[in-house]
Amino acid sequence: MSDALYERVAFIGLGLIAGSMSLAMRRGGLAGETTGYARSQDTREIAAEISLVDRVCDSARAAVEGADLVDIAPALKEGAVVSDVGSVKQSVLDAVLPHLPEHAHFVGTHPMAGTEHSGPRAGFAELFDSRWTLVVPVENTPEPEVEKIEELWRKMGARIERMDASHHDTVCAVVSHVPHLIAYTMVGVADDLRRVTDQEVIKFSAAGFRDFTRIAASDPTMWRDVFLTNKDATLDILGRFTQELTALQDAIRSGDGDHLHDYFTRTREIRRGIIEAGQDTAAPNFGRGKPTSE
Amino acid sequence: MSDALYERVAFIGLGLIAGSMSLAMRRGGLAGETTGYARSQDTREIAAEISLVDRVCDSARAAVEGADLVDIAPALKEGAVVSDVGSVKQSVLDAVLPHLPEHAHFVGTHPMAGTEHSGPRAGFAELFDSRWTLVVPVENTPEPEVEKIEELWRKMGARIERMDASHHDTVCAVVSHVPHLIAYTMVGVADDLRRVTDQEVIKFSAAGFRDFTRIAASDPTMWRDVFLTNKDATLDILGRFTQELTALQDAIRSGDGDHLHDYFTRTREIRRGIIEAGQDTAAPNFGRGKPTSE
Repeated sequence: MSDALYERVAFIGLGLIAGSMSLAMRRGGLAGETTGYARSQDTREIAAEISLVDRVCDSARAAVEGADLVDIAPALKEGAVVSDVGSVKQSVLDAVLPHLPEHAHFVGTHPMAGTEHSGPRAGFAELFDSRWTLVVPVENTPEPEVEKIEELWRKMGARIERMDASHHDTVCAVVSHVPHLIAYTMVGVADDLRRVTDQEVIKFSAAGFRDFTRIAASDPTMWRDVFLTNKDATLDILGRFTQELTALQDAIRSGDGDHLHDYFTRTREIRRGIIEAGQDTAAPNFGRGKPTSE
Repeated sequence: MSDALYERVAFIGLGLIAGSMSLAMRRGGLAGETTGYARSQDTREIAAEISLVDRVCDSARAAVEGADLVDIAPALKEGAVVSDVGSVKQSVLDAVLPHLPEHAHFVGTHPMAGTEHSGPRAGFAELFDSRWTLVVPVENTPEPEVEKIEELWRKMGARIERMDASHHDTVCAVVSHVPHLIAYTMVGVADDLRRVTDQEVIKFSAAGFRDFTRIAASDPTMWRDVFLTNKDATLDILGRFTQELTALQDAIRSGDGDHLHDYFTRTREIRRGIIEAGQDTAAPNFGRGKPTSE
């Protein structure tokens, strides 16, 4: 108990991220006690059954009472730190800060890790290992509290980078939100097209399309909220995307092979950078095994 | 030798696909002898060094002389079957058929498998295992020759489906060509954007963008040629894509959460179909391990 970074940690919501956080904290001995609450009774029962947190509570208030580190909720102890793990930050600050008691502090965090699965059974302690967690402090939060949250994430396996809310939202629009919207769109187009059957799309999806469907399989409710709350950055990046796509479309129409070749050569560099940065594997067959052995 | 399906197989080009075919034929004892030619002397030397084919030749003519199954070339033996493994079929037929001798036959094939690597060292015998190979016969090819090619591909590990050239090109535009163009575009947008540094894009690419860079890392020359030769189907599908993306963009702008949620829910179904069809894994973390252990 004395090694724990926080005496009590309360989770509001018990899905993939909270579950993985709880398991990573248990792995590292980072929390004296973990409590949790979820709106759905089913989720609470599963979480209790698999001991996802030390104690499942029947209300958010009961979960956070006396906690040192809590997700968004009232009933905060003196000096408690409130945090969130959402994909958009400016709108969270706008919503939370006006209601935060004077004696509590806020630090936004965004673990950039996930799978296409959700729910209380989806979590695993290794989810954050070697992945980035973006930390978004607000003006009034004391520096030691920010550093303590950063230490918590590092001890849950993550790498840390600090940035402000507006920059955070632009970065995420580029690396995550717009790619997701595009993947959703392409999967929708394939589905609409009557000349190519769903069966054909499904069978022949090895090259390219498969990666789109993986992205497009994420939780619809979460992504609806991401796009509605990160509206400005998303529309900005989408505008640029449409511009560049139109230019490539014109090059295909006019048979401008040099333009295409130059463009495709340039994009290889970013890919090389990602492999060198250790974010992915250079293994052949996209790092996957044979479908029969998976 | 007597078990071999073809007595001699000649490859023109010794990259990922030809190399994997040669290794898969060796694994299955499908060819009496394999010969090969590549334009680059460097490639020919590497192929000889690693014994990618039984005999590396210094000209395409020498490679195909007397062969039973050959890639596109002259010097064809009576009854020889000419095949190709390209991603687009109508333009290949337009280019090849007028020059094919009367005594030779053509069957187009398209193995839907690949990695982002190319060159003579990239091939491996398992590349086609459980993946689809599309077979595109032409009117005058005798049915037994088509069935023999299909048997060859099955014995190289692939699953087979026959279709005509025009349908082939539309299917591939949907499942492969347009997704690739979109991935290239998104990677290009990220690179252009000065407010978000390349370093940030590379570091935080875990969610969504990483899959795009994987797709966009493919061979620029091959993809330039794909888009120029499959122009009509690509522009057709791109048009539909732009339409649907505009509708989603409008929904974000006007805050129409129901439209977004419905759309995202619908795309989940195709993903489920792909997992059920055995084309991909349902494993968490997108089927990848930790970056450090890869």
